[in-house]
Amino acid sequence: MKAAVWHAKRDIRVEDIPQPPDPRPDEVTVKVHWTGICGSDLHEYTAGPIFIPTETPNPLTGKVAPLVLGHEFSGEIAAAGKDVTNVKVGDLIAGDAPMHCGDCEPCKIGRYNICDSLAFVGLMGDGAFAEYVNIPSYAAFPLPEEVGTDAAALVEPIGVACNTVRRSGISLGNSVAVIGAGPIGLLHLQAAKAAGADQTFVLEIADVRKEFAKNLGATMVLDPNETDVVQAIKDNTGGLGVDVVIECVGGDECDGPTVPVGLSILRRGGRMMVAGIFEKNVEINPNELVFFEKQLWGCLSATPKDVEAAVSLLKENKIQADPMITGRIKVDDIVEKGFEELLANRHKNLKIIVTPQ
Amino acid sequence: MKAAVWHAKRDIRVEDIPQPPDPRPDEVTVKVHWTGICGSDLHEYTAGPIFIPTETPNPLTGKVAPLVLGHEFSGEIAAAGKDVTNVKVGDLIAGDAPMHCGDCEPCKIGRYNICDSLAFVGLMGDGAFAEYVNIPSYAAFPLPEEVGTDAAALVEPIGVACNTVRRSGISLGNSVAVIGAGPIGLLHLQAAKAAGADQTFVLEIADVRKEFAKNLGATMVLDPNETDVVQAIKDNTGGLGVDVVIECVGGDECDGPTVPVGLSILRRGGRMMVAGIFEKNVEINPNELVFFEKQLWGCLSATPKDVEAAVSLLKENKIQADPMITGRIKVDDIVEKGFEELLANRHKNLKIIVTPQ
Repeated sequence: MKAAVWHAKRDIRVEDIPQPPDPRPDEVTVKVHWTGICGSDLHEYTAGPIFIPTETPNPLTGKVAPLVLGHEFSGEIAAAGKDVTNVKVGDLIAGDAPMHCGDCEPCKIGRYNICDSLAFVGLMGDGAFAEYVNIPSYAAFPLPEEVGTDAAALVEPIGVACNTVRRSGISLGNSVAVIGAGPIGLLHLQAAKAAGADQTFVLEIADVRKEFAKNLGATMVLDPNETDVVQAIKDNTGGLGVDVVIECVGGDECDGPTVPVGLSILRRGGRMMVAGIFEKNVEINPNELVFFEKQLWGCLSATPKDVEAAVSLLKENKIQADPMITGRIKVDDIVEKGFEELLANRHKNLKIIVTPQ
Repeated sequence: MKAAVWHAKRDIRVEDIPQPPDPRPDEVTVKVHWTGICGSDLHEYTAGPIFIPTETPNPLTGKVAPLVLGHEFSGEIAAAGKDVTNVKVGDLIAGDAPMHCGDCEPCKIGRYNICDSLAFVGLMGDGAFAEYVNIPSYAAFPLPEEVGTDAAALVEPIGVACNTVRRSGISLGNSVAVIGAGPIGLLHLQAAKAAGADQTFVLEIADVRKEFAKNLGATMVLDPNETDVVQAIKDNTGGLGVDVVIECVGGDECDGPTVPVGLSILRRGGRMMVAGIFEKNVEINPNELVFFEKQLWGCLSATPKDVEAAVSLLKENKIQADPMITGRIKVDDIVEKGFEELLANRHKNLKIIVTPQ
């Protein structure tokens, strides 16, 4: 079958590889329809290996590079192991990325997303930029007929936004600031609104992304290069700052001090959720936390109940995926029209989805 | 009356000053029995002004230096304003430090300790290293007969520990690490145990304070200069790390990287409470928060319900104050036997209490 295989940094090859074996008793084989290119995939392309195991096989999957990338995907169940009960052959499904052990302390209390042995499909094991992929059956979520498999390629990142928003406690009437209007930021914006957020501020510097944020319902879009963001948010929240900040940028040399900025736009007693991945350390003033009893929470991936919520939100049209899909390409073109396009036109694109068909 | 008055850094004078005026309708005049010297007082002595207003009068109190220090105190109600209902003349009380406006958003939801106009008795207004002090009546907490006014000088810092522990969610069976076994650290240790913590680890480098931590019931006392603290805590928590870390050090040039160390001994999904005050910024790796969904919370002072809890804990002997009182001095000696003694023998002393009588 055809697949996009990560061999090394800047070396992703579209190759003909063997189909996955028959699924194990608790696995399914998915015939892939669409797979989104995620920021993590881009990081593996430009700066990897980050998550990808290259020497020691991943303990959960036994895999080592080269491996097939791709973890935001949808498709049809092509085969199901004998113990599988939640889906059957022919079902259309969205796939979830995290795989967990089920035995460790976090798993025992349902926090599968911080499993001691957490591994991601398409990063620590073969993924979905391929005609077929094998996944644990618990990572397959049946789609209602209202949700097409193209939009369903965004179920995984929508689940991520659901985890962040659920844990943040955002509810009716809250004010929320989202830092960064990339795909993850825009999904967090929509998830916050779906959870009842009243005022929503989006901080973004790229014009195209500012437009997306407005179109997806942000109350106010603020450009830190043009506006005194702290003052603007104070002026619009009765001097208080927002209840919740969601950081969706992470940071490297090119990015700003999103954590200190986030803390400074937060009200006393407020909560800042960090969903971005960082390439270097960050300096904070702990007194900013102490004097105002602010909180800084890390957020990772999603639990199965967040992915179920994501499917419902898409079904009920409370989160829009279609406007966020800015490119649909074939796996043959994944390097040129996918990775290279995203790098060259970072701010023009949001989500590019890929089909192996 | 006699009082210890802060004029400037390294300039605290014991002077004869006028008694406070008659209390306002909602105030009481306290005849002071005992007042503890707090780390904040020491900071004002060595490096102030920090909290003390020197040019612009504090908006809530109207005060500017010189002013009387002292905010951890007990005494007897000598006079009560006409609207006061919670205490009467002759009552023995513990005093609380924070004064609040009652009108701002945090006050409206009971979070008086992060009031927009928060001010502390003895830092932003005249305090209790004096024969008499006027305070708002809500800051006076009647003492049960089991609690002496010497131990009651610790009610304010015990309230601080109650606020941290209550917000941390520490409950039955939890594992807790306290960083620093100064007065605040040891009170947090005791409060965590009173809230049901099972295993308690204390990180401390000074021998005398290590002994105090053991005597006050720490399961294990670890010296970061002698032990691989991360490994030791892993070994004693089934490889997990602790549920809650409480930072009671803060930091300046002499102190270690307590925030990164705290995050590294925290279990996945755990919560680190920062109660220390910092003199400079701190570098953290946000991925340590993100990859393991850890949380970093700032904690400040206490609400009235925490101070009520503090009085009960003393009454029920669930927190011991007496062993922590390492010195009892007269206000005449406050500089030599108080501030200078604490600086010279920082690790030998815990709480020195002062009487103006």
